[in-house]
Amino acid sequence: MSGFFSRKYAELTPYTPGEQPQDRQYIKLNTNESPYPPSPLAQRLARQEAGDLQLYSDPECRALVRVAADCFGISPDEIMFTNGSDDILNFAVMAFCDAEHPAVFPDVTYGFYPVFARLNNVPYTEIPLAEDFAIRPEDYFGVKGTILIANPNAPTGVALPLEDIERIATANPDNVVVIDEAYIDFGGESCMGLIGKYRNLLVTRTFSKARSMAGARLGFGVADKELIRDLNTLRFSTNPYNINRMTMMAGVGSLLDEDYYRNCCAKIVKTREETEKALKELGFEMTKSSTNFLFARHPDIGGRELYLRLKERGILIRHFETQRLKDYNRISIGSDEQMRALVETLEALLKEKT
Amino acid sequence: MSGFFSRKYAELTPYTPGEQPQDRQYIKLNTNESPYPPSPLAQRLARQEAGDLQLYSDPECRALVRVAADCFGISPDEIMFTNGSDDILNFAVMAFCDAEHPAVFPDVTYGFYPVFARLNNVPYTEIPLAEDFAIRPEDYFGVKGTILIANPNAPTGVALPLEDIERIATANPDNVVVIDEAYIDFGGESCMGLIGKYRNLLVTRTFSKARSMAGARLGFGVADKELIRDLNTLRFSTNPYNINRMTMMAGVGSLLDEDYYRNCCAKIVKTREETEKALKELGFEMTKSSTNFLFARHPDIGGRELYLRLKERGILIRHFETQRLKDYNRISIGSDEQMRALVETLEALLKEKT
Repeated sequence: MSGFFSRKYAELTPYTPGEQPQDRQYIKLNTNESPYPPSPLAQRLARQEAGDLQLYSDPECRALVRVAADCFGISPDEIMFTNGSDDILNFAVMAFCDAEHPAVFPDVTYGFYPVFARLNNVPYTEIPLAEDFAIRPEDYFGVKGTILIANPNAPTGVALPLEDIERIATANPDNVVVIDEAYIDFGGESCMGLIGKYRNLLVTRTFSKARSMAGARLGFGVADKELIRDLNTLRFSTNPYNINRMTMMAGVGSLLDEDYYRNCCAKIVKTREETEKALKELGFEMTKSSTNFLFARHPDIGGRELYLRLKERGILIRHFETQRLKDYNRISIGSDEQMRALVETLEALLKEKT
Repeated sequence: MSGFFSRKYAELTPYTPGEQPQDRQYIKLNTNESPYPPSPLAQRLARQEAGDLQLYSDPECRALVRVAADCFGISPDEIMFTNGSDDILNFAVMAFCDAEHPAVFPDVTYGFYPVFARLNNVPYTEIPLAEDFAIRPEDYFGVKGTILIANPNAPTGVALPLEDIERIATANPDNVVVIDEAYIDFGGESCMGLIGKYRNLLVTRTFSKARSMAGARLGFGVADKELIRDLNTLRFSTNPYNINRMTMMAGVGSLLDEDYYRNCCAKIVKTREETEKALKELGFEMTKSSTNFLFARHPDIGGRELYLRLKERGILIRHFETQRLKDYNRISIGSDEQMRALVETLEALLKEKT
């Protein structure tokens, strides 16, 4: 920290992204990227923009908003696009949390929520998950705070049924309930259809996972138009041109190519089910995943050791050091070939142990 | 404002970007875009990334940092890239301004500075420019605040000599001095070479103007590594993947293609000089521009009227409603053809007036 850094950030610990080592080629199963390229139409529309980069992107994202409103059956003033969904999650914490409205989220969830709270100097409460890593909806009734729930949750992969989301929204009419649906396409039930019913509901989504566009940086939020207006006030006070032309048109292409995206999701779900079966046969214990990753532990090998042994062998998975998670690892679902390599390597590793 | 919006933002008025009307084709001289496309190499490298968007971009921007460090003769830990330069300017206000370190900037300058200050709830002082729109360096000596100066300034186009920047940095050793060099390539003298000498100096730059990449969203800051570390703490607490893969590689391409960029700058400066001459002949008064725009008024026609008359005729320029600026308009330098169309239209308009 320099002597110039404002003391309000003295205690700030930034988020740690999944490692991106450049020393060798790894099988990367550590950042929940899709093993499939983006839709050919998304690629083509993105490439077309490269020759027009001298012109600013449309700060109102009109082309993209139009297609998305149509695709999701909502009104254009109920949606807002951002530079990845981290961007809208941060805006949500800025807009709807303060000393009187602390942030409330599970103790095990996306690691960025507490960072956003500290960044914005708002208090937060972490509600422990049940022993089996489930979110207990009753724990969130009347908590007098702005609730952030990832559904399905990360890194556990566990989904909450739609009626539980609805109960949480109903029980907190005076607070915003943010449902982060980054992984919704791999098995969860979206609550986007509840937007018209609950003025306090904000649903966030990303193009990073099921739409194979992690490197394009595109996310969005859907909510009552009053909430979207608040979030846009912050966006236009921060970085109105936050989405570049190429990403904007890649987003249009992705939304227009629903078949491609559904097909990718189906392939990933199938690979997940096969991997789950293979890992169970090797003795792994897992939560029920509704995502593009597995959250797994093995009785014979510690989480950190497994992570390190796989890394030595050229396979990256994500390990978390916190007390509740340290026995586990989060393993992204790659291609069938990558997952076969993982299973074979694990088999060999476990044989060495015995 | 919804009932959920935090009261801390109740008074926030967002920045107003230059209009992007879609009702007809305009000659767009209102947002200081380059009339030239980005470097062919930048385009090619950006397009190559479109097929790999399923992979996250490198949050440390290593490829881009390496090329930039080489290009600008600095160390990799003295530079940080952001999603446009608005992003790093906002981080600078977050990092280096607070109640004890108010923001200090000219009364006429980039309209985003007061927005960033209000967004971050920090006090700010506006120091009036001289009658001729010049910045008087002495006004900034010992102001006990974090100084933000656009050099050349916008929308006036007026540049400050290097020695004046140095005097300001010397006179404020306990505060950060941010020099926003968005328009430096069109005639100003960069102070980037002073970085090693002044620990309190932060220079920001953009790829939006001289590098023809407004629609790609790429900016950066250069400073002592301690300041860069502070800014990175905020970036990694907000949106570590803020730069997408395509933009990152377009940036690499642009930096590797210095000839193209210098050639574009030279053409724009030449067009500016010719336009300046033609406007003078029509009776316009202008500040001395070191940028890719002219700041002009005419004794016979009000600023707003001129803006509206040109808009009717399919030419967009930028008008500001504030008391000090309302007689003027900011006119971006487009292609020779666009500027000829402007001059002819102005000639016709002024004839009608008499």
